[in-house]
Amino acid sequence: MAYELYYWDGLQGRGEFVRLALEEAGAPYVDVARGEKSEGQGIGAMMAELESEGPYPPYAPPFLKDGELIVPHVANILFYLGPKLNLAPRDERLRIVANGLQLTIADLVTEVHDTHHPIASGLYYEDQKDEAKARSKDFIQHRIPKFMSYFERVLAQNPDGPQHMVGRTLSYVDLSIFQIVEGLRYAFPKATKHFADHYPHVVALHDAVAGRPNIAAYLKSERRLAFNETGIFRHYPELDRAVR
Amino acid sequence: MAYELYYWDGLQGRGEFVRLALEEAGAPYVDVARGEKSEGQGIGAMMAELESEGPYPPYAPPFLKDGELIVPHVANILFYLGPKLNLAPRDERLRIVANGLQLTIADLVTEVHDTHHPIASGLYYEDQKDEAKARSKDFIQHRIPKFMSYFERVLAQNPDGPQHMVGRTLSYVDLSIFQIVEGLRYAFPKATKHFADHYPHVVALHDAVAGRPNIAAYLKSERRLAFNETGIFRHYPELDRAVR
Repeated sequence: MAYELYYWDGLQGRGEFVRLALEEAGAPYVDVARGEKSEGQGIGAMMAELESEGPYPPYAPPFLKDGELIVPHVANILFYLGPKLNLAPRDERLRIVANGLQLTIADLVTEVHDTHHPIASGLYYEDQKDEAKARSKDFIQHRIPKFMSYFERVLAQNPDGPQHMVGRTLSYVDLSIFQIVEGLRYAFPKATKHFADHYPHVVALHDAVAGRPNIAAYLKSERRLAFNETGIFRHYPELDRAVR
Repeated sequence: MAYELYYWDGLQGRGEFVRLALEEAGAPYVDVARGEKSEGQGIGAMMAELESEGPYPPYAPPFLKDGELIVPHVANILFYLGPKLNLAPRDERLRIVANGLQLTIADLVTEVHDTHHPIASGLYYEDQKDEAKARSKDFIQHRIPKFMSYFERVLAQNPDGPQHMVGRTLSYVDLSIFQIVEGLRYAFPKATKHFADHYPHVVALHDAVAGRPNIAAYLKSERRLAFNETGIFRHYPELDRAVR
């Protein structure tokens, strides 16, 4: 049976980290909110799950349905799917390591969101633009280097070599690193201009993921939505700035 | 062998969610950064792990060491410890549910932090006070009710009854809900004044956890640090406001 992924239509957002894993594995899945109402899909089907009076409703998208089980939160979905999609280490202890790395990625994603919404996620960007400039300045100066140099270090210190974030094989963490690089480059082209010089292992991993046949095919397909200014990674030129 | 918990000394912070689980279970643990340098502990021992050139260094505290394995991130630590401490559901699928709930709690904790640091975690509160007021206003008006009514709903819709967040027995998620209520009441006494009326199941769970013998003994001990203005939950009266 196909996995059911529930996430907002029209943006990559947090759902994209899950899509990349499903696409790399060639796993059957339905992107429910983007489907047709006549087929029991669409945004209404997602809202019905969120408003369900049944056990353990999810707090927010994305969530995955696998039969009766609802799995919310990106890191939790990937931890659950990883072994089934052959995108997690075989060693149980390395799976805990992978989960820790994915949670650091999740923290970075939240910080990216808050660059354009530092005061209130329910208000428009235009209503918090000055604060967004201040937060983005700090994000570019301090937070991007802190996160990226950490990922670079994890790759450099991987005892199985710098090709993967965990162990010796591709995992969902690698796919998420690809998406982080893609997203940061879209949102902050000036700030990320020298990424390849500063974070060579990270960029090499990004490039290797981009070249994988299933990922390359997905990125060219209509299933891959373009980055835009409703997602997590948004390009507002006034928030970007060059770094050395 | 005792678990080694690594977290900043002097504040409850994110480490407290782990401490509550270890204390409830009566598990042997060392709070490393709060220990003596002469015993190989203290802040230096924690920094050495963070700056390690070994495999898979943690990004930030808290992290747990169990023998050679380093487990970072609160939700990951609790997912790892839960079954060992008998604080997780037996059913593997409910463990995934518990992890999802804990990740929603983690998101709330991040938002609490950002009420006093909406622009930059590296700057002083005093340097972002106006923005903190704006973010706290939104947090009290919109975010607290959204998270708390969700937790109330999870309890009300638990097929095993509203005594626990997941299944029919105490789990680490219940302990974390206790800490959320404690922390929000400390930080925002006006905003949380009517919690018991608005979120009766949540407050009943909080009270039940507070009354457990091991938790009650811990809360009275010197191991429980007081809330203060270096932690996640900070009481700045100017950020608090009454709600009906």
